[in-house]
Amino acid sequence: MSSKPTIPKGTRDFSPSEMMRREYIFNSIRQVFRLFGYQPIETPAMENLSTLLGKYGDEGDRLLFRILNSGDFLSSASDEDLVNRKAGKLSSVISEKGLRYDLTVPFARYVVQHNQEIVYPFKRYQIQPVWRADRPQKGRYREFFQCDADVIGSDSLLNEYELIRIIDEVFGLLKIKVIIKINNRKILSGITEISGESGRITDITVAIDKIEKIGLTAVIEELKNKGISEESIARLLPVLKLRGSTGEKLKELEKILNNSVTGMQGISELRTLFGYLEKTKLRSSFETDLTLARGLDYYTGAIIEVKSADVNIGSLCGGGRYDDLTGIFGLKGISGVGVSFGADRIYDVMEQLGLFGDPETGGQTVMIVNFGEKELDYNLKILSGIQRLGITAEIYPEPVKLKKQLAYAGSKKITRVIIAGEDEIKNNKVTVRNMQSGEQSIISLDDLASAVSV
Amino acid sequence: MSSKPTIPKGTRDFSPSEMMRREYIFNSIRQVFRLFGYQPIETPAMENLSTLLGKYGDEGDRLLFRILNSGDFLSSASDEDLVNRKAGKLSSVISEKGLRYDLTVPFARYVVQHNQEIVYPFKRYQIQPVWRADRPQKGRYREFFQCDADVIGSDSLLNEYELIRIIDEVFGLLKIKVIIKINNRKILSGITEISGESGRITDITVAIDKIEKIGLTAVIEELKNKGISEESIARLLPVLKLRGSTGEKLKELEKILNNSVTGMQGISELRTLFGYLEKTKLRSSFETDLTLARGLDYYTGAIIEVKSADVNIGSLCGGGRYDDLTGIFGLKGISGVGVSFGADRIYDVMEQLGLFGDPETGGQTVMIVNFGEKELDYNLKILSGIQRLGITAEIYPEPVKLKKQLAYAGSKKITRVIIAGEDEIKNNKVTVRNMQSGEQSIISLDDLASAVSV
Repeated sequence: MSSKPTIPKGTRDFSPSEMMRREYIFNSIRQVFRLFGYQPIETPAMENLSTLLGKYGDEGDRLLFRILNSGDFLSSASDEDLVNRKAGKLSSVISEKGLRYDLTVPFARYVVQHNQEIVYPFKRYQIQPVWRADRPQKGRYREFFQCDADVIGSDSLLNEYELIRIIDEVFGLLKIKVIIKINNRKILSGITEISGESGRITDITVAIDKIEKIGLTAVIEELKNKGISEESIARLLPVLKLRGSTGEKLKELEKILNNSVTGMQGISELRTLFGYLEKTKLRSSFETDLTLARGLDYYTGAIIEVKSADVNIGSLCGGGRYDDLTGIFGLKGISGVGVSFGADRIYDVMEQLGLFGDPETGGQTVMIVNFGEKELDYNLKILSGIQRLGITAEIYPEPVKLKKQLAYAGSKKITRVIIAGEDEIKNNKVTVRNMQSGEQSIISLDDLASAVSV
Repeated sequence: MSSKPTIPKGTRDFSPSEMMRREYIFNSIRQVFRLFGYQPIETPAMENLSTLLGKYGDEGDRLLFRILNSGDFLSSASDEDLVNRKAGKLSSVISEKGLRYDLTVPFARYVVQHNQEIVYPFKRYQIQPVWRADRPQKGRYREFFQCDADVIGSDSLLNEYELIRIIDEVFGLLKIKVIIKINNRKILSGITEISGESGRITDITVAIDKIEKIGLTAVIEELKNKGISEESIARLLPVLKLRGSTGEKLKELEKILNNSVTGMQGISELRTLFGYLEKTKLRSSFETDLTLARGLDYYTGAIIEVKSADVNIGSLCGGGRYDDLTGIFGLKGISGVGVSFGADRIYDVMEQLGLFGDPETGGQTVMIVNFGEKELDYNLKILSGIQRLGITAEIYPEPVKLKKQLAYAGSKKITRVIIAGEDEIKNNKVTVRNMQSGEQSIISLDDLASAVSV
């Protein structure tokens, strides 16, 4: 084989410097999850297709990576399906497993399967890759990491509050300025209810979203083109005209949705949540956004989305409440609420804003120059001594030219190089070279610990 | 769906308490890898089948998990192959990707693909899951983690020495007593060379391995049955009779292998390595083991295997030198040496020996009792205050009975519960309950920080 090997499209290798930056993000998120009492679980990369299929819509089913059955995978395929090339039918016969598409459905499966061992409310976090056979494009990959925190088994709005505090802490720690947008699915239901256009939630929220960009007249025109009746539009008009702060909007909405039980409940939930938030010192700004309609298929209460205040890149984190997630696996009536951080977008934002600093070396690191067998004993003892201090240290493995050894240290961003040849050894000393400044000093072995520590 | 969902056989969910223990193992290994200057990389779960096939023998090819091509996966399949059910041929047409089988081949692929960016010697570590369609059984899974450290681009035996020090540090940190067994492939080649039975390495090492159990006569009988000639057996006799310490064995071998250039080189390498090791304070014991023949297909120099001194469970870690790993991808002449830690076996040994202690809570954790809306402000302020100290803290999300809230805290092994109801709030105090001892004390808010920290 002479052509260079490659990796599947949409997947990535991570080099040491990328890994260090990614780990910094993952560790920050993990640290905050733990601070709030969330506990880690992990689920297998492969799930049974019966667990995954039908949970993400037709689009999702199509984007699942399927694993070919081991052994004679054709044994259950019928002659007819083979001859007639029935790909759809065959694929379910020759493959029974698929790769995880998100962390939410495996979590629901986990909860149902381990229901007896779980004490509710169960606060879990999960940081693992997921796979989607999406068309790869800039910023969209076929393998990417999700970082999820969910509480299951509690209706309290304190959970929503806690998750928003987690969002605030994570982005505070990473020094990313964000805007946290909050909506409630019940308000959207109320709006479609009073308009007489239930089932048109998407069209209506898209319209509301465009008001500021294209103006009221154009939005009304668009609604008409989509087949929403004049009558319904008239009823929607007060919603389309909403302006002002969260408080002002909610007050107005309360009048509009007065006849919708669901709508009024949504307003009350949003009020309670904002009440908690307003009493808390948050670093991020937060606001209601009635156009927020993400995950409409399964969210039933709060809907949350986080955007960078400085970079236009889509959402960095999103989530919401789903009243019956485990119902799909036969365990009814357990409400959950969760958020998911997108590590890849967070990485891109941090890189664009130059927020990474230099986490590649978490402090001092040392390389010892290799002079050959004669000096080896002396240098190996120095090496173990430095490592015993908990400081990363290595000896260059071969006695090549000093220049080459220093170039290696430079490329690894090593901070101190120790040079101990014949002369130094004779006097029980070492030369320490500061790789940033280029300065060298000869010191006694007794002073070595402090010289490599700072 | 009413029956409980399951996961594919041979895969596992990890609960919070299992996760904490696994992370303890991974973090210990990672910490030592870094201490010695190894840097992390990650590669995708999926590799092109052209990267994976033919690298692990026929058995390995069979055990690869293959991913069905997305979209119309049958489009490239011929009518003939479909009608005749040619599973082998079809599988390569309908799937182009497979799940990673180990971390070594993806690393070789990485090195060749990123050759221009890499400064050699390249010391990388990688901690990721791998997948094998093996028959699942006790202690053997279809998804499991490998923790690999390799140096590529240096022939120096200091690398072997460093990897053995890493092994010693890791198991020292985990408090597992181990025996490190070391062999050299070149010695095995030398032995088969002088016996005139090149290509029979496996039969001959198996025979040497059985000497102590079944005795010389029985071993000779077995060699005969395997078709090794009387003449060859006569030449092997001095090897079969080897006894004593590493030094004594090597001295004897030097005479026996005197005419084998390769064999003598193996002895010299082993001598150098033992010379380094004997000058180092290691916690583990180490020894030569001429029967060690793992990974014969690709190792060319040192062969390393680590066994628990207390539990009979197979090897906990293994590795060796491979002179031409990247050759399979067209990049010749780059020598590598590496070791791989098996996290699952290490977990089992630690559990059997009771070595986990109680890492579930990494210190103090706090739960605040929820009395309802009226007391909420006071309690939420306490909550943020404790979290600002970096102490894991949560408020129970609903104002249910105290007993239920305390049971939740108990199940999560929370160490301190804070109770602040009407009375406490009136006096600016809180009740702190030590969950281990059951003791409660009423303290002022000023003393809270110290009360939850120790």
